[in-house]
Amino acid sequence: MTLRAGFVGLGAMGLGMARNLHKQGLLSAVWNRTAEKATALAQETGCKAVGKLADLAPLCDVIVTCVSADADVLAVIDELLPVIEPDTIVIDCSTVSADTARTAAHRLHKAGAQFLDAPVSGGTEGARDGTLAVMVGGDEKAFERAQPVLQAMGKAVTHFGASGSGQAAKATNQIMCAGVIQAVAEAMAFAKSEDLPLDRLIDTLGKGAGSSWYFVNRAPNILRDSYPAGFRVKLHEKDLKICREMAARHGVQLPLIEMTLVHYRRLIEQGHGDEDISTLFRLKDAMFAAARDSSTPRHKP
Amino acid sequence: MTLRAGFVGLGAMGLGMARNLHKQGLLSAVWNRTAEKATALAQETGCKAVGKLADLAPLCDVIVTCVSADADVLAVIDELLPVIEPDTIVIDCSTVSADTARTAAHRLHKAGAQFLDAPVSGGTEGARDGTLAVMVGGDEKAFERAQPVLQAMGKAVTHFGASGSGQAAKATNQIMCAGVIQAVAEAMAFAKSEDLPLDRLIDTLGKGAGSSWYFVNRAPNILRDSYPAGFRVKLHEKDLKICREMAARHGVQLPLIEMTLVHYRRLIEQGHGDEDISTLFRLKDAMFAAARDSSTPRHKP
Repeated sequence: MTLRAGFVGLGAMGLGMARNLHKQGLLSAVWNRTAEKATALAQETGCKAVGKLADLAPLCDVIVTCVSADADVLAVIDELLPVIEPDTIVIDCSTVSADTARTAAHRLHKAGAQFLDAPVSGGTEGARDGTLAVMVGGDEKAFERAQPVLQAMGKAVTHFGASGSGQAAKATNQIMCAGVIQAVAEAMAFAKSEDLPLDRLIDTLGKGAGSSWYFVNRAPNILRDSYPAGFRVKLHEKDLKICREMAARHGVQLPLIEMTLVHYRRLIEQGHGDEDISTLFRLKDAMFAAARDSSTPRHKP
Repeated sequence: MTLRAGFVGLGAMGLGMARNLHKQGLLSAVWNRTAEKATALAQETGCKAVGKLADLAPLCDVIVTCVSADADVLAVIDELLPVIEPDTIVIDCSTVSADTARTAAHRLHKAGAQFLDAPVSGGTEGARDGTLAVMVGGDEKAFERAQPVLQAMGKAVTHFGASGSGQAAKATNQIMCAGVIQAVAEAMAFAKSEDLPLDRLIDTLGKGAGSSWYFVNRAPNILRDSYPAGFRVKLHEKDLKICREMAARHGVQLPLIEMTLVHYRRLIEQGHGDEDISTLFRLKDAMFAAARDSSTPRHKP
């Protein structure tokens, strides 16, 4: 029997993911805070755009949510709770804390329903092409039952364990991105200060042991002095705050997270929050420029 | 006319590189501080093992040096200076500061000879297989004339500009390695604290945007709790001190370098200096362990 899937949150990511559910004949209904987006997708795909979140419940075996913040996820869950059918699976693809995932799972479980935390990685291209990496936490049987929906959205779908473990895996990835972009930005600012030909350098070091996805794919932004999103600074800041909170529950402050959050705050204040995180090069480069300026001999009175 | 190449410094890297020169029929003579190594290679290849550095000069058109530290490079140059033939090219494959490279170039130039700084990357496997990346600084004509020698040792041979620029490119790579290993170690310690299945995590995140050469190739060390060299902590410490000195000349302290040097000092004190730099995971993991221990309720008197 084909699963009937509902979708909540038709943002840049959600829209692509919902369309891929439609291509597999799974999409039955959608809801979005801005109703126009839901109506447009309903016209495009023939699914139903519901006016209230609660109206999704009787139409869906699986409800996929893709919203912004922890509070949004719990608000959606709480609106569904009174009406959700037993054994419905809610799959949350938002990036939130592992605690929020466990709270959502607990509430739905008490109502006889299931919850999978399933944050994704791969950007809007991945959402559109159905090539996302999907990191899943929650009950193994629910994970098996939700396969058609998960496979329609992603290429690499991995189960990491109990509720929250999908979010923990995503958080691990976001910490790694912070360290790698620090590495790329700091090294390239150094190279520029040494007057190296940066294009040749990217080509050579990109093949070596210091290389990374971000160096190969985003260091060229530095050559063009242009940082189109990409992975927006603002979004990575949000994710790193989640990572910070999760580490703090273990009593630990992680240096790369703390350093990167300081830098991102400065970039956002300077108006670069909607640029790709490789814009961090600006700050590292400015360190060298400031040191140059302060060492330039000034006219003495 | 075939170039006659001499080799100075038959360490783990140098030995492989000298053998590759021999395979191309270029190796004429060798010198090593520990004479036995030179004698052994001479017996193996039929080249001449000279007793004094100065004796290399009349036998070679190109002299390749691969030694440990800045002082060693300049000591070798100074011993060659009185006897070096005009137009001889000294190619230094050691990792030292750009300043040392410029000093060496200046001294040789006054004696009518040439100097190329040509630090390499790719490890002992690369040295053995002739697949090193070679980052070259110095006179363009000398670079062209030295091609047979450079190509015998490396696969990707790149000219970056004037004397010192090869070392600057290598320093850029070493800064990037520091940031990337910080990223891998910090993220994996976080993942362990969240009880994630680390093998599955490496597999999944290795395909994503947070990935890097070090994550794919060295994070598996963490699974085995074993960090065979690899890129030794002690050697990366030496290189990062060079990077620190180069940045300081621009009046800048680079945060990744400073943080990593503090961590490496601790690892070396704990007896891990000869392990691969992925052993940095130990320190990050210990942060979580220490926080756990200090939050465990103790027996009250």
